Amino acid sequence: MTTQGNISFSFDAVKQVVIGPPFPNSAEIHERLDKARALAVFASDPISSNAYATEAIMSVLILLGSGALQMTMPIAIGIAALVILVVFSYVQTILHYPGGGGAYTVTKDNLGMMPSLFAASALLVDYTLTVSVSVSAGIRAMTSAVPQLYDSRVGLAIGAIVLLTWINLRGVRESGTIFALPTYAFVGGVIVVIGLGLARYTGVMGAQLSPHPGTIEPVGVISQFAYIWLILRAFAAGCTALTGIEAISNGVQAFKPPEAKNAAATMVWMGVIAMTLFLGISFLATHLAIVPAENDSVLSQMTRLIAGNGILYYWVQFFTMMILVLAANTGYQDFPRLSSFLANDGFLPRWLQNRGSRLVFSSGILVLSLLSSIIVFVFRADEIAMLPLYALGVMLCFTLSQAGMVRLMGRVGKASPGEEIHTHATVIHYESGWWWKRGVNAVGALTTGIVFIVLVVTKFKEGAWLVAVTIPLLVLWLRSIHRHYDAVASALSVRDLQPVDQIDIADVAIVPIADIHRGTLRALKYSRRLASNVRAVSIITHPDQEERIRRRWTRFPEITAGIQLDIIAYEFRDILSPLIEYIERVSDIEYPASLITVVIPEFVPEAVTSHLLHNQTANLLRLRLLEHENIVVIDIPYHIQSSQSRERRQAEPPKEWVTLN
Amino acid sequence: MTTQGNISFSFDAVKQVVIGPPFPNSAEIHERLDKARALAVFASDPISSNAYATEAIMSVLILLGSGALQMTMPIAIGIAALVILVVFSYVQTILHYPGGGGAYTVTKDNLGMMPSLFAASALLVDYTLTVSVSVSAGIRAMTSAVPQLYDSRVGLAIGAIVLLTWINLRGVRESGTIFALPTYAFVGGVIVVIGLGLARYTGVMGAQLSPHPGTIEPVGVISQFAYIWLILRAFAAGCTALTGIEAISNGVQAFKPPEAKNAAATMVWMGVIAMTLFLGISFLATHLAIVPAENDSVLSQMTRLIAGNGILYYWVQFFTMMILVLAANTGYQDFPRLSSFLANDGFLPRWLQNRGSRLVFSSGILVLSLLSSIIVFVFRADEIAMLPLYALGVMLCFTLSQAGMVRLMGRVGKASPGEEIHTHATVIHYESGWWWKRGVNAVGALTTGIVFIVLVVTKFKEGAWLVAVTIPLLVLWLRSIHRHYDAVASALSVRDLQPVDQIDIADVAIVPIADIHRGTLRALKYSRRLASNVRAVSIITHPDQEERIRRRWTRFPEITAGIQLDIIAYEFRDILSPLIEYIERVSDIEYPASLITVVIPEFVPEAVTSHLLHNQTANLLRLRLLEHENIVVIDIPYHIQSSQSRERRQAEPPKEWVTLN
Repeated sequence: MTTQGNISFSFDAVKQVVIGPPFPNSAEIHERLDKARALAVFASDPISSNAYATEAIMSVLILLGSGALQMTMPIAIGIAALVILVVFSYVQTILHYPGGGGAYTVTKDNLGMMPSLFAASALLVDYTLTVSVSVSAGIRAMTSAVPQLYDSRVGLAIGAIVLLTWINLRGVRESGTIFALPTYAFVGGVIVVIGLGLARYTGVMGAQLSPHPGTIEPVGVISQFAYIWLILRAFAAGCTALTGIEAISNGVQAFKPPEAKNAAATMVWMGVIAMTLFLGISFLATHLAIVPAENDSVLSQMTRLIAGNGILYYWVQFFTMMILVLAANTGYQDFPRLSSFLANDGFLPRWLQNRGSRLVFSSGILVLSLLSSIIVFVFRADEIAMLPLYALGVMLCFTLSQAGMVRLMGRVGKASPGEEIHTHATVIHYESGWWWKRGVNAVGALTTGIVFIVLVVTKFKEGAWLVAVTIPLLVLWLRSIHRHYDAVASALSVRDLQPVDQIDIADVAIVPIADIHRGTLRALKYSRRLASNVRAVSIITHPDQEERIRRRWTRFPEITAGIQLDIIAYEFRDILSPLIEYIERVSDIEYPASLITVVIPEFVPEAVTSHLLHNQTANLLRLRLLEHENIVVIDIPYHIQSSQSRERRQAEPPKEWVTLN
Repeated sequence: MTTQGNISFSFDAVKQVVIGPPFPNSAEIHERLDKARALAVFASDPISSNAYATEAIMSVLILLGSGALQMTMPIAIGIAALVILVVFSYVQTILHYPGGGGAYTVTKDNLGMMPSLFAASALLVDYTLTVSVSVSAGIRAMTSAVPQLYDSRVGLAIGAIVLLTWINLRGVRESGTIFALPTYAFVGGVIVVIGLGLARYTGVMGAQLSPHPGTIEPVGVISQFAYIWLILRAFAAGCTALTGIEAISNGVQAFKPPEAKNAAATMVWMGVIAMTLFLGISFLATHLAIVPAENDSVLSQMTRLIAGNGILYYWVQFFTMMILVLAANTGYQDFPRLSSFLANDGFLPRWLQNRGSRLVFSSGILVLSLLSSIIVFVFRADEIAMLPLYALGVMLCFTLSQAGMVRLMGRVGKASPGEEIHTHATVIHYESGWWWKRGVNAVGALTTGIVFIVLVVTKFKEGAWLVAVTIPLLVLWLRSIHRHYDAVASALSVRDLQPVDQIDIADVAIVPIADIHRGTLRALKYSRRLASNVRAVSIITHPDQEERIRRRWTRFPEITAGIQLDIIAYEFRDILSPLIEYIERVSDIEYPASLITVVIPEFVPEAVTSHLLHNQTANLLRLRLLEHENIVVIDIPYHIQSSQSRERRQAEPPKEWVTLN
């Protein structure tokens, strides 16, 4: 059809302009990321955490009075130690599972299906929230600068999600290139601030910086239990610095070969950069006695104190905003990849494992955009309200992943030297340092487990309950999808199939007709070729209709001769019911164990929009007959004004493809 | 399938509970309205106008100072005279066109297609606005009483539309019964107020009522042209009393027999009641010197002055609110009927002419609800903003309808006594009073035409332009639909069909397969029966797939023997493209003038929701092949776990139907 042809033609054309020409499968290797781009793509989330992780610790400690802010640095060092444990654990994961899949694969291979589904669900929830939170935070920065935009914030946030979707649909490498600049600009800017700050604090350069003025309140007197609880809460709050660390482990196959080696190196670099920023900011914030304030972030106060209100200040502020938005990109990298792993294992719809025309997992990208847009819409782009939901999932996943590595290292230790042990997902052999690697993972799992519990308990009422409910539900849903695919596979299996199992095909064809016209005549002619027992059936709601049909029927004896014409009078208007009943009788009573055939004359109008102008009887009939396992449905198309489109179609050059046969 | 079966079963069950059991066609005559119900159903709009028509006149006159309010009564008398002309015209219309269709039918029969489409479009727009305006006005009354509800007004208004939809879907007679009470309660209440008012004003009963206190300002000095223009505007504003008068003429066939006689009698009664209220209110409002106020309607002031703040006051206030909402029901009566006339003539989609299970035009009711909800949503349920759009359409339609009657009466006058003249839509013969009937219609057409122009000019900027643009666009759309149906009819026509025109059916069947499983084997077996030249075609994106398919292919020689297996390697992921290209080559090059057959193995999962879990390749393929006029598509269903549903289906008793054959 001209119009439909035009539409699909222009859809392809528009798609090519918007996301670029399609890549062949063989281009996959060229789309891989080098380490510099990979760092920008995967590390935007953990690096961006530095914009607020120190402040998160301080905001809890200040409840004890500003004197308690002295505790910031020890806690930051504790968190940095934890980061080192987690990074170490994930480097091990990458090296042992070079196929990628991170926590999900490790847990599946070592702890079994249910724990792996918990890890995967936790990550899916967290990546979706990463996008919603990051985009909302970026838009907040924008509306703080231009308050007139405040009322449009939901629209702006969804617009930002659309933009991220678009860039990610254009391909991994292209998005890596786009996102590299702001990431490195942020890292560079903050490192300069920290360097300058340290130089001025130690007096190496210029006048020594004095601590920020302000009275230091003494630490309030509280019970020892409350004190420990508060320190734990501050520690848990600072653990926001850990979010996104796992990202690289899911995406090992996005790296240029040698994939595992490059991914592990990038992981280490990411850890080093993130910890440098985190410790540097925490040190200076404490030693310059900066106090968290409602409307001026710690990083902003610190930068202004160190570098004044000059270009460096605006540089850091601008790229902070940029990297907060780009943190969303970590979600865009890993959600679709993780979904494809799950889909490949039959835990999510199969179409999530398909790569799109630009070799990215387009369906996963679109699902993520949709889900995060819904969250942004529901929470009115208020990321403060979303924060209690955030970072829980990733802690659960760290705990499970590290616990999995504890198990794996146990198996590594039990292997005889030289022996190769094949697990479900990888191959392991004896390693001499297995016992201390095991210990590191055990300490890590324990610590992140405690942080997870602290986060759930402290944030439960503010929204963490939502996540605590969603993750198990998601697990049940993933499992039910898996059961469905299992059932389909065994039903379709040909393993025990004998030729006698095959159903008979009955020598009967039923043709529902509303009138005798060119379309129905074509269907009748086709049916005669198909079966010797052809029955035309017409439902009439007014006696006049019968006479008209019978008169026209006799006009075409060369087609209608020998065909049984059944006319059924019906007292109601839903003519589908008697039609289906007629067909069911033939199927169930006359030919109970055979396939019967229903031939539907369907005429196809020129324009897509014209479809609405016709009774949808043919479509509804097809849909209803789909419920019946022994009925074959044949659509006989009859086109209105189609000669033009036919010419046009033949004029299009065929695409390139190779027949192996 | 169990689930799908359940869904359609429970959908029917829910539908029966919500709108009642279906009526057979034969029940139509029992669903007809007696005169009392018909008056309530059709007259709610014109009768409700009395709640504000007098006030509309006074609001214009007050611009000249309160002294000018003395002009209210003369203008009201002029409008009453116009109402008499219009009622007379429509009584003639009803008697000459007993099939119904009002202005649309009259104009089509006497002035031609384009004027009739203008009349129809004007009415469709006006009925939609009737619903939006009435419902919004009712909700405003509610939110004035309970201001907390103000923020929910759009939701409440759409809720009211849903309620009206529901009542109307339950059937004409049932909705007539429901709507009769508030209509008659309003009429009764206002008549008591008027009677009491006249009795007290004339001193017949109790102390004579003195005019409302307040200074009477002198009429401002303006030019004669401005004065006439203002009087015209006041007259045009008061013409809101005319809206809905035409309603009965569209719905003659909703009356019990004798339809035309009953409809004409109801029309006259409606005119009498409406004019009694209008003149009574206008007389008392003027003679009690009531001045329109922002927050207290003229009717409310008048009632309080006459009857005090007692039960009668609250009765009138409550039923005023009710009838304002129920005025919407006039739209619900006539929009679907008019749509069915237009659909029957091929100017609107055919499905708008179908009656639903309760014999009302359900599709038209739902379309009206959707359109009026959109207007309510766009205008935020603010009927004041909608008013400039309102009442234009109905004036245009009066003008066209009366002009049509002028023409008809001319033809009546030309007929020889005893002669029967068949017009397109009715039969006429000589009437002795044709010349004065013609004159009455001519005066009416001229007057409503002037009112139409005044309304367009005065309200153009406030929104009337929207209607002035919409009506012609609607006319063009209606005409394009008609052209489409004409094209379809001539393409399908068998008038000049010769057997040689029928297309050949090629002895070839193409079976796209992704794998060899029970579903594809069934499709292959079916295809062998259908054609001697069967080709299985598989698109592979990875070399491993070929070996797997060939290995399985050879396992079932009793089915695959003699079938050509074409395996096509493809470099991209959209496997639909090479598949369609393969099919197009067979269709266009090998069998260019014949029907070829594509057999699609489709497996049907148990639950509807499971459909999403599978690649939609089969559906997309069917959709794309629909574009090709020479390709027949066969769906071979293969069900997963279907034994249960089969048993359940057979256990259901068949519905009653009669085979005439």
